[in-house]
Amino acid sequence: MPDFIEITSKDNSLIKFISLLQLSKKAREENGLFVLEGLRICCDLYDNTDKFDKLIVSKKAYEKYYEKIEKLSIKADKCYLLPDTLFKKIGDTSSPQGIIAVSKIPERKREIDNFGRYIALENIADPSNLGAVSRTAEALGVSGIILSSDGCDPYSPKVLRASMGTLLRMPIYITDSITEFVNSNGLRSFACVVDETADKITEIDFKDGDVIIIGNEANGILNETQKNAFKRVTIPMSGKAESLNASVAAAIASWEMMKR
Amino acid sequence: MPDFIEITSKDNSLIKFISLLQLSKKAREENGLFVLEGLRICCDLYDNTDKFDKLIVSKKAYEKYYEKIEKLSIKADKCYLLPDTLFKKIGDTSSPQGIIAVSKIPERKREIDNFGRYIALENIADPSNLGAVSRTAEALGVSGIILSSDGCDPYSPKVLRASMGTLLRMPIYITDSITEFVNSNGLRSFACVVDETADKITEIDFKDGDVIIIGNEANGILNETQKNAFKRVTIPMSGKAESLNASVAAAIASWEMMKR
Repeated sequence: MPDFIEITSKDNSLIKFISLLQLSKKAREENGLFVLEGLRICCDLYDNTDKFDKLIVSKKAYEKYYEKIEKLSIKADKCYLLPDTLFKKIGDTSSPQGIIAVSKIPERKREIDNFGRYIALENIADPSNLGAVSRTAEALGVSGIILSSDGCDPYSPKVLRASMGTLLRMPIYITDSITEFVNSNGLRSFACVVDETADKITEIDFKDGDVIIIGNEANGILNETQKNAFKRVTIPMSGKAESLNASVAAAIASWEMMKR
Repeated sequence: MPDFIEITSKDNSLIKFISLLQLSKKAREENGLFVLEGLRICCDLYDNTDKFDKLIVSKKAYEKYYEKIEKLSIKADKCYLLPDTLFKKIGDTSSPQGIIAVSKIPERKREIDNFGRYIALENIADPSNLGAVSRTAEALGVSGIILSSDGCDPYSPKVLRASMGTLLRMPIYITDSITEFVNSNGLRSFACVVDETADKITEIDFKDGDVIIIGNEANGILNETQKNAFKRVTIPMSGKAESLNASVAAAIASWEMMKR
């Protein structure tokens, strides 16, 4: 277990570095690092990794969660202790618990399991939606999540929090083109659209190697992607609402796909 | 169409009144009024009511959305025009569009349709969840939403926004006791729990007059409510996630209940 290094100056380079990682997708990509904030999600990290880069805690948190923090520190390369006022400068939440972990972004897993069943999100913009989809996908046993690179960053603090830690466990595939990715991996793709003339999702006989594509919250799935999909499918709606929220559409679609 | 009354002082009593209605459930209940903010949801109100109490717009919004605001004003008892800086004081959103409507809280609809199918939310705490459930429920054709009075207020600005206006149309029933409400209305209630020993929701033969109960995000459904339900049902999960988000659980449960 490493000793805790005390930081007292707001000009310390680590303080600036963590703030940058919290705010900037580019900084996360360039450094191959992401930030987790909060006791619970840091414990999720502990459960899902052999080691991580940094553990940063406030003095108050160190006293309050002493045993858990000592346990977390076993897997941390370096540990830091900050005065509470300084911690607030790097926290992303309005009422920080005082615990931050910095970890390496996992290498992108290249191989698709051809017996798996997947959800693909094309240009999803809302961090809560991505987090929610991951949480639901894990609960329903979906094999992994395919993301287009123009959507929101799965390693942003908001997304990780909304995912309740599930994004630390779910296989994630990031691609510039959903179409190219699913085709080159031999997956059968179903573009989920709001269109009464598309096939009803309840009538599809899903099998292993299938993937359901959910589109952007405002604009849906690209025409190009729809055209190249194996089938266009729709969730039948009977009410007045124009469409379902993207995470709800993904939930119902996953539910139908995972029923065997 | 009423004239627009110009307000220029931040000490005007209307300014204080609107802020209070935005912030306080008690103020909304005492005055029987609620506030809607944003062009789209105010148009939803227009579509769903014969008249409403007040329309309040910023000068900038008046110029930008002139035609739509003139249309909205037809159904408003009184209309007010505010300088942009003053509007910011009553807006609830971080980047206000400059349009607010004040409307009467509809009288609680007493009668349940015995051929309807309902969702009941017991002590739901998160405004986004309540909003999302309403949006999904409308899209899937659920007949109405039963809410326990200890949950979040369906007339709070956050809930109304998250519901995308659907709460203006969905029949809402508020009760101190879900158990008493469903029993006195002769509904068959299904308490949705995370418990492998409960009946699988896929094996239930839902019929008219049924209601699915979803519990509080952290604590689930009260023991008392579970005990008095017709059946305890569960959404089978295969992954590691401890549970589904309440709005996702409600979506999947509604989906199963509404399939005919």
